[in-house]
Amino acid sequence: MIEGDKIVKEAIATQYPIKLIAATHSWLATNETLIPKHITVVETSEQEIERASNLQTPQPVIAIAQQREITKDHTKKNNKWILALDGINDPGNLGTIIRSADWFGLELIYCSHDCVDVFNPKVIQASMGSIFRVDILYVDLKETLKKVKEKKYAASLQGNSIYTIKKNISGVLVVGNEANGISQEILSLCDEEITIPKRGNAESLNAAVACSVILSHVV
Amino acid sequence: MIEGDKIVKEAIATQYPIKLIAATHSWLATNETLIPKHITVVETSEQEIERASNLQTPQPVIAIAQQREITKDHTKKNNKWILALDGINDPGNLGTIIRSADWFGLELIYCSHDCVDVFNPKVIQASMGSIFRVDILYVDLKETLKKVKEKKYAASLQGNSIYTIKKNISGVLVVGNEANGISQEILSLCDEEITIPKRGNAESLNAAVACSVILSHVV
Repeated sequence: MIEGDKIVKEAIATQYPIKLIAATHSWLATNETLIPKHITVVETSEQEIERASNLQTPQPVIAIAQQREITKDHTKKNNKWILALDGINDPGNLGTIIRSADWFGLELIYCSHDCVDVFNPKVIQASMGSIFRVDILYVDLKETLKKVKEKKYAASLQGNSIYTIKKNISGVLVVGNEANGISQEILSLCDEEITIPKRGNAESLNAAVACSVILSHVV
Repeated sequence: MIEGDKIVKEAIATQYPIKLIAATHSWLATNETLIPKHITVVETSEQEIERASNLQTPQPVIAIAQQREITKDHTKKNNKWILALDGINDPGNLGTIIRSADWFGLELIYCSHDCVDVFNPKVIQASMGSIFRVDILYVDLKETLKKVKEKKYAASLQGNSIYTIKKNISGVLVVGNEANGISQEILSLCDEEITIPKRGNAESLNAAVACSVILSHVV
């Protein structure tokens, strides 16, 4: 379920497999020409949208899309940075991470099976449309990390400073759960622990923030 | 209103002016010795906490504190980076920004009057206790920026790359509203626009992410 003018338009622009669009009369009056012919269009009242919406401030358009299937050959070197998320469970964080990955040019994110569902409406919302461009694969993270050829960096509270590590054109950045970090099993598969040096007193950074800060330094 | 074991303990540790603590029998059994004598303690049932809580998963302890008043002499040079927030209105973003500011060693944040209330429970939650350490001042941002002596950098979608700007021991980083960025009036008071170069396709970054990424490069 995709809500809101901006994100629905991004889904249309990226040819995401939308099945149905439900929108108010005024939204359709302005935007109907954008909608490809094969998509079913339903005109609805604001009250109907409000009932269906997951948002606190309902938007004039909702789209229903098929969940896109992604398959990938993990054995091929890809010359790009990849994210590997180990148990991210806040939907806002996952969406924000996808948005940042898209900003920094990443094309692939591996999620462990215990990450929050990428099709959770809050993930879609927080991704601001980046979910339609970045490939997100739910995998057995342990098996997948064993197969990937790139160097694996663990985002950690100790480890080498991101300000001094050697730049690499590719690599896998592993980011762990909000409360518990990266599981021991996954950490043992990583080649290097890296950290964002702390100058103040916060105990940690938000997971999406930490992931994005590291990407800005390594990519 | 401060919820949860971790944040309530941070509030106690920083001597934040807590008036009352309501907690379950088992929380009090473990933690009562931590609570200073002048704070009223009420033992409550889990059901009572659930009714009072703002969280989806209620925690065993809630504290009620006085809103701490902060006054500051804007004319004194402070040799530190400062944040100036122009219309941040998502509570999760404001809390996350406060947490990042605390991580990177900032001690002061100016908020325009149209920023979300820093005492909003979602701000407190997302700040993970950093709200007790960082001074947050609601000000007429225009008048305040006219008075501060440090160089003012505007976080923007165009401008000079954060990867190449000259490092400075102090400065004011101005971050704008999630949808509209920095208002023209405030932008005109800034000395330099700076940006996080984009490599991919996302239209923008989350405001808290952008703020944190820039801090990691300039501080």
